[in-house]
Amino acid sequence: MRALTELAKRRGYFFQSSEAYGGVAGFYTYGPQGAALKERVEDTWRERFSVAEGHMEVDAPTVMPEPVFEASGHLDGFDDMLVECAECGTSHRADHLVEGATDIEEAESLPPEEVAALLDAHDVVCPNCGAPLAGQPVDEFNLMFETNIGPGSSQTGYLRPETAQGIFVEFPRLKEYARGQLPFGVTQIGKSYRNEISPRNALVRTREFTQAELELFVDPDGDDPDVDSVADVELTLYPAENQPDGDYVETTVADAVDDGLVEPWVAYYLGVATEWYAEIGVDFERFRYRQHQAGERAHYASDCWDAEADVSAPGEDPEWIEIAGYAYRGDYDLSKHDAHSSESFTVFKQYDEPKTVERASVDPDMSYLGPEYGGDAAAIADELEALARRDRGAFDGETVAVDVEGETYELPVEKTGFEVAEETESGHHVTPHVVEPSIGIDRTVYTVLAHAYDEDEVDEGERTVLRLDAGVAPTNVAVFPLMDKDGMGDLARDVVDDLRGEGYAVTFDTSGNIGRRYRRQDEVGTPFCVTVDYESVEEDPETVTVRERDSTAQARVETAELAETLAALRDGTLAFDDL
Amino acid sequence: MRALTELAKRRGYFFQSSEAYGGVAGFYTYGPQGAALKERVEDTWRERFSVAEGHMEVDAPTVMPEPVFEASGHLDGFDDMLVECAECGTSHRADHLVEGATDIEEAESLPPEEVAALLDAHDVVCPNCGAPLAGQPVDEFNLMFETNIGPGSSQTGYLRPETAQGIFVEFPRLKEYARGQLPFGVTQIGKSYRNEISPRNALVRTREFTQAELELFVDPDGDDPDVDSVADVELTLYPAENQPDGDYVETTVADAVDDGLVEPWVAYYLGVATEWYAEIGVDFERFRYRQHQAGERAHYASDCWDAEADVSAPGEDPEWIEIAGYAYRGDYDLSKHDAHSSESFTVFKQYDEPKTVERASVDPDMSYLGPEYGGDAAAIADELEALARRDRGAFDGETVAVDVEGETYELPVEKTGFEVAEETESGHHVTPHVVEPSIGIDRTVYTVLAHAYDEDEVDEGERTVLRLDAGVAPTNVAVFPLMDKDGMGDLARDVVDDLRGEGYAVTFDTSGNIGRRYRRQDEVGTPFCVTVDYESVEEDPETVTVRERDSTAQARVETAELAETLAALRDGTLAFDDL
Repeated sequence: MRALTELAKRRGYFFQSSEAYGGVAGFYTYGPQGAALKERVEDTWRERFSVAEGHMEVDAPTVMPEPVFEASGHLDGFDDMLVECAECGTSHRADHLVEGATDIEEAESLPPEEVAALLDAHDVVCPNCGAPLAGQPVDEFNLMFETNIGPGSSQTGYLRPETAQGIFVEFPRLKEYARGQLPFGVTQIGKSYRNEISPRNALVRTREFTQAELELFVDPDGDDPDVDSVADVELTLYPAENQPDGDYVETTVADAVDDGLVEPWVAYYLGVATEWYAEIGVDFERFRYRQHQAGERAHYASDCWDAEADVSAPGEDPEWIEIAGYAYRGDYDLSKHDAHSSESFTVFKQYDEPKTVERASVDPDMSYLGPEYGGDAAAIADELEALARRDRGAFDGETVAVDVEGETYELPVEKTGFEVAEETESGHHVTPHVVEPSIGIDRTVYTVLAHAYDEDEVDEGERTVLRLDAGVAPTNVAVFPLMDKDGMGDLARDVVDDLRGEGYAVTFDTSGNIGRRYRRQDEVGTPFCVTVDYESVEEDPETVTVRERDSTAQARVETAELAETLAALRDGTLAFDDL
Repeated sequence: MRALTELAKRRGYFFQSSEAYGGVAGFYTYGPQGAALKERVEDTWRERFSVAEGHMEVDAPTVMPEPVFEASGHLDGFDDMLVECAECGTSHRADHLVEGATDIEEAESLPPEEVAALLDAHDVVCPNCGAPLAGQPVDEFNLMFETNIGPGSSQTGYLRPETAQGIFVEFPRLKEYARGQLPFGVTQIGKSYRNEISPRNALVRTREFTQAELELFVDPDGDDPDVDSVADVELTLYPAENQPDGDYVETTVADAVDDGLVEPWVAYYLGVATEWYAEIGVDFERFRYRQHQAGERAHYASDCWDAEADVSAPGEDPEWIEIAGYAYRGDYDLSKHDAHSSESFTVFKQYDEPKTVERASVDPDMSYLGPEYGGDAAAIADELEALARRDRGAFDGETVAVDVEGETYELPVEKTGFEVAEETESGHHVTPHVVEPSIGIDRTVYTVLAHAYDEDEVDEGERTVLRLDAGVAPTNVAVFPLMDKDGMGDLARDVVDDLRGEGYAVTFDTSGNIGRRYRRQDEVGTPFCVTVDYESVEEDPETVTVRERDSTAQARVETAELAETLAALRDGTLAFDDL
C-alpha cells in the first residue's frame, strides 16, 4: 500500500531509518505522530490485557545468553530457507519463491532439498535480476541476531526473537511474586528481533519490532477462564476445516466454546482481544481469526488462532496479514527450561486434604549384588529403584528381571529390599500450562492506519483522510487562526494553551490557506479542527468554528465551552449534528 | 547497597536476568513493582520534557548500520581500557584499577601505555585472583555490541550506545516536520547498549539500559531559553573550579545565568530537571549538579553538567553516581553527519529582508593557463576560485600568487577573469547547535529507590521501609481482611474492586498476620494500607482502618469515602493527622 507508506513518511507516522546513509532494509523509525499512535496502542493493550486482568508486567533485557535459546529450541530450529542468486548475490526466502511458483501454501514445512528441487523443477528465477536459481543450494538460515557479551572470554548472546523468553526464564522468581498460586499472568511490551532474509511491506516484516505478550500460567487440572465476562462478544472465525472452502463462522465467544470450536482459554482471549481491537478502531469487515492448520501449528500447541487483518488499499485485492497469535502452548516452554536449567519450573499444588499414598522402594543387598555382579552391581541397583517406581508388579514373584545396557539380570526379590510403604503427601508438583496471546504492535499500528486510510471528494476537492478513532488519534485537535493578525493569532494561541491545559494533544498551524491546513490535518487524522476568524475576535461571546474531519461539517462553538464540547464529541456523548 | 538489592529482588523491583542459567553480568529484569516504577519515571519525564515543552517524540530502532557510527565517532573512539589477568582470565577496566591505586581521578584520559606503566609501577594485582597485572597489555576495547544484518553479503550493525543517534541521523526529515523552524526539540525514550568491561552495582552500570534524551536544535545566533519560567528554581551547583575544595554553590537558575556560572540553555534545563526530580522524590540533600572539568568534557561541548546522586546506604560514606548529563554540544553532531552522509543537516534561515551581498568569482582564461601550466592548469584554476572566495584582496594587484601542492604560481590577474558581483540572498544555511539533556532512566529509578530506602523502629519492631513518593509508588494501596472469613474477605474484595475502578493500583493480601502484611507493604513502598476487620462488617456506616506507611499512624474512614480520602492524602490536600 504505497500511498499509505508515502503518507506515513510525509506526515510523521513512520519512515525507513538511516536514509541519509542509504537506509537498511527492515528498520523503521516512528515519527512524532507514529510514536504517539504506537504509545496509545500499547497503553490500551496494557490497560486491557494486564491491568484489568490483574496480571504482572515485567521489563526484561533484549540481549539474552545462548543457553536460553538452546533450551527454547530457537538455536536449532528458528530458521528460514535461504537461496542466494549466483548472479547478483541477493538473498531470497526459498519457500516464498516456491509458493509463488506453485500451488503449495506452506512451503516452509518442506525439507530444504525438496524446496531446492521445486526451484529447479519450476525454473524459478531471481526476482532481482532474472537469473535462473536452478542448482543453487537452499540453506537453513537462523533468524537470531548474534553478538558477543563482554570482552576477552566472551559469551555468545542473541537479541531475543520474542519477548516471551524474558518471562519464561524468570518463572522461578515470578511464581514467588505470585505466591505460588495458579493461575497468574505476566505481561511484557518490548522489542524483539528477527534477521529476516527479505524484509518487506513497511512495518509488516521488519527486523526489529515491538511485541506485547501475555504468558498466562494455568493449572491444567483446575483453572478455567471467566468465559461469562466476554460471552456475547462476536467473533469472525475461520476454522482450519473451513479454509479449503473459504467459509467464515460468525459466532460468539460462548457459542464458540460450547460448540467446541475454540479451546476455552483461547476463546476467552479472543473475546478480550476483540474488545481491544474495537477500541483502537480495527475494521471488523476486514478482520478474522484464522485457526492454524494441524501441519502449521507447533507440535506442542493444542490450539492456535491468528488474528488476521486485510490491509489492502481501497478497491484492491485483499491482502491478509497476521497481526497476533492466540495459542494454548501446553507445558512445552516451562518443561524445556526445567530440563535445561538448574532451577525448578513447577508449582507445588497443595491438596485440599493431605493424601496417603503407597510408595514402592528398594534397598538392595549390596553384599549379595557386589560379589554376584561385580562392576554392574551399581547400575543394577539403580535400575531396581527405577523399576520399583515404574512397575511394582515386577516384584510380585520370587525373582525380578532388570535390563541394564541390553542385558537382562534375574535376581531374587528378597535380595532387593523391596517394600511398599504408606506416605502422606500434602500436594504435588505441577508444570503449569501456558496460554499465550502474542501481539505484533507494529503490525497492529499498521492495520489501524490501513483501516483508517480513505480517499474521498469533499468541497475542497479530492482528499486523503485517515479516519482514526478519536481515542487513538495522536493529535486530538488542530487550531488555526484565519490569519496571524488582528488578534486572531493571539486568540488562537490562548485556545491552544487552554486545550493543552485540559490534556489535549494540539497542533497549531498558521501556514497556507485554511483549505490546505484542513487537508494536512485530514492526512494526519486529526478528528477536529478549530478555526479562529474575524467573527471570533469581534463578537461577544467569543466563538470559533469547529470542523469535523470525517464529514467536513462545521459548527460555531463558544470558546468557553470548547474543551467540554470536544470531550463530548470524542466520547460520543454528543453528535456533531446536534451542535 | 546490598540491602536495597536484596529488597529489590524479594519485592519485585529488579533482579539479575537469566539466573536459572547462571545469570549474565550487566543484565537486569524489572519485576512487576520495578516495571511500574520505571514506567512512572518515564511518563513523568515525557510529560515534563516533551509534552509540556511542545517537543516531538520519536521511536527509532536500536540496531543501526556501521556508517552512522563512523560519522558519530563511536566506531573509533568509544573505547574503554581493558586489561586481562593472565592467571584467571578475567577482564578489568585498567583505568579504574589505576584510579584505585593512585590519586589520579580521571585515568580514562591517559594513553593506554601510560596506564599500563602505572599498573606496573604500583604493583596492581587482579581484583579477582590477586595475581600481579604487571606486564599485561592495556588494550582499547570498543563498547558497542556488534552484529550482522541480513544473510549472505551482510552489513555490520551495532546496538546503539545512546538513543541520540536515532534522532541525529533523521534530522533531515525531522526538520521538515518542524517546518524548518528553529528551535525545535525531539525526544526519545528507549534502550541503549554498552558492552561494559566490568558491569557492577546492580542498575548503576549495566550493559543494556534505558535512556531518555532530548535533542534541542537551536539557532546559535538568535534562540534564547525561557529562563523566566524556571528563574526561581533552586540549584545545588558544584562548579569545576570549586571541585578541588569541595564547595557547593547554592543558587537559583536566574542567578546562575546572571553570574555566568552556567550556559543559559543548560541552566534552563537544570531548572526543568530539578522540578522533575522533585516530582519523583529525589532527596536534594543527596543531590548536586557537577560541572565537567575542561579535560573531562568532550572537546566540542562548551558546557556540561552532570546530575549526581549519593546512593549510599544510611550511615555509610557518600557514593556519588552520575544519573544524567546536561550539555551544550555546539554543532558537532550535525556537522559530522552532514560531512559523512548524502544529505544536508542544516536549516535554511530566512533573513527578515533579502540581503544584497558582494560575491567574488573567477573565470580563468584556460587558453592562457593551459599552454602556460600544462597538467597543473586545472588545479591552479580550482585554487584561484577558492582564493577568490577566501581572500579577494589577493586580486588587488597586477598579479596574483596561488599555491598548488607546495609550488607557488604567479599569474596576471587579467587572465583570471576575477570579478565582484552583487547578489541578492534571501537567507543562509545554518547548522543548528544541540542542547542535550540525557537521562539514565535506570540510574534514576535506582536513585529514587535508594533515597526512599530507610530502616526504623516502629511498634511492630524493626522494619525496612521504602518512603516512595505517593505519586510514583507502583502500588497505591494494599487491602487486607483481618481474616478471610465472616464477611471480611468479601467486603475487602469489594473495596479492592471499588478502588481499582477509581484507577488505583491495588494489592490484595490475605496471608500472614496483619503486622507481617504491613511490613511486606512497607518494603514495597505502598503509601497506604486498608484493613477490613470485625468492626467493618458489624458497624453502620461501614468503616475500615487506613494506615499510613511513613508514620504507621492509623485512622478509621468510612468505606464510602475511602477513594476520595486516599486521593486527598496522595495529593497532599489532606494531612493524615486531620483524619
